[in-house]
Amino acid sequence: MLADAIIEYQQRVDAQLKQHLSGLDDHAATLKAAMTHGALIGGKRIRPFLVYSVGTMLNVPLHKLDACAAAIECIHAYSLIHDDLPAMDDDHLRRGQPTVHIAFDEASAILAGDALQTLAFDILSQPIEGLTAQQQLKLVATLAKASGYQGMCGGQAIDLASEGKRIDLATLTRLHNKKTGALIRCAVEMALICADASDKDSAAMLEYADAIGLAFQVQDDILDITATTEELGKPQGSDTQSDKSTFPQLLGLEGAQETAQQLVEDALSALKTLPYNSQLIADFARYIIERRV
Amino acid sequence: MLADAIIEYQQRVDAQLKQHLSGLDDHAATLKAAMTHGALIGGKRIRPFLVYSVGTMLNVPLHKLDACAAAIECIHAYSLIHDDLPAMDDDHLRRGQPTVHIAFDEASAILAGDALQTLAFDILSQPIEGLTAQQQLKLVATLAKASGYQGMCGGQAIDLASEGKRIDLATLTRLHNKKTGALIRCAVEMALICADASDKDSAAMLEYADAIGLAFQVQDDILDITATTEELGKPQGSDTQSDKSTFPQLLGLEGAQETAQQLVEDALSALKTLPYNSQLIADFARYIIERRV
Repeated sequence: MLADAIIEYQQRVDAQLKQHLSGLDDHAATLKAAMTHGALIGGKRIRPFLVYSVGTMLNVPLHKLDACAAAIECIHAYSLIHDDLPAMDDDHLRRGQPTVHIAFDEASAILAGDALQTLAFDILSQPIEGLTAQQQLKLVATLAKASGYQGMCGGQAIDLASEGKRIDLATLTRLHNKKTGALIRCAVEMALICADASDKDSAAMLEYADAIGLAFQVQDDILDITATTEELGKPQGSDTQSDKSTFPQLLGLEGAQETAQQLVEDALSALKTLPYNSQLIADFARYIIERRV
Repeated sequence: MLADAIIEYQQRVDAQLKQHLSGLDDHAATLKAAMTHGALIGGKRIRPFLVYSVGTMLNVPLHKLDACAAAIECIHAYSLIHDDLPAMDDDHLRRGQPTVHIAFDEASAILAGDALQTLAFDILSQPIEGLTAQQQLKLVATLAKASGYQGMCGGQAIDLASEGKRIDLATLTRLHNKKTGALIRCAVEMALICADASDKDSAAMLEYADAIGLAFQVQDDILDITATTEELGKPQGSDTQSDKSTFPQLLGLEGAQETAQQLVEDALSALKTLPYNSQLIADFARYIIERRV
């Protein structure tokens, strides 16, 4: 059931992204190809999954959620393209495929990231059937806050500033709450906005979002040690090599696994207060720490 | 009068930008400093000038225009930071000051550009007194279209693809219509949206915008040949050195000067159809081709 839903929503957002990208005219063919490579390189589509699954739980029809799912994935894709650049993490491989600056060149990768960020706001500001201008503006505001200095970009900056340094658990947690957590929270928040959810339901759902956002990152750190290069689609142990602080480093492998487990418990407790069928997103929370990729 | 207005609006948008930037908390101090360096490095603030002056002509109070002026300048600033990167134009000097990747480092410059782009959409999606959600959403859509693949980013991509090649006048014109023209047109369009301007007035004003947008670029190419390094704040003759196609190269210096002159005449003709006092923006059109910097 979870596996089916993951595939269904993955295919749905991929179709959306393809449609937005193939709709662009060909005046800058290399840039268009680089954007498409970066956006459609694959991946779990966790953020779109959350938009669709939380929205569905709250009775929002899927077509009202398509723009949010596509927009948030554009932001995620742009951030990966820029993070992979030589001046940042200098990664050549992502999901088993060459990163954008390897498949194309550095200038195209910078521009492709830039244009994918813009595309996110373009998609969100086009008319969306069934949403009011007020709701759409709130979606834009939420995505901007989550992805800019206060969120993802700020987290990446803390990450860069922390390289080669020993940072404490509070700093590592704040780093990931911004770098990864903000966008995961945003996915849930967008679904809540589309549903016009009550404050009470929203508070519970955001608790869920914050818990799985951090659990996701803790599990990523664990997988960097325990999974194979083939499973990861990138070199195993790359965090250790690049001298990044990780949860297993600060807590030990077992301590990190316990933390991840506790975060998922927190997420599941938050769901119990909701008057909806939250089976699917509860399964998703468990999947976050059971996944091998 | 024009000189006074330029300074007034320059100071006004700088105050806006300072307020937005200093309002950010300090969790990523280097990124914040890099964003501030890039946004406040100076410059003519042509796009904010157009937002304010066209809006004022159409009786929009300045406070309703502040967000548009700040947002469009954030987009312009981010584009300069990324264009200056080693993988792009590799410029070390802008407006007599070190570019962001020189003053900081490449990773900070990439991130600062990214976060300034996001800040633009953040600013535009916060509540703006006197504008409806509908209007604000239209502002977001207009800025996104003008700055993404269909506009500025696409233009930069054509520019990169054209380097070292002989391109024809039609391609050069299209390149600049996207790379520079789209954002200048957007500045005017944002003022029209804030004013709820009629279709007829809007059409005339957009004709003006397109003409001065191209005139601006032709004059930039002319200045690269005729101005001094000191006047430019960057090395004189850098277009010729980097083997870029320019209007003087395709039309001769005199031909380019005539083209710029004709474009300004077109802009002034468009203004004549308007029932407003368009003195200031008429003077601005003339200034575009008379300026030395």
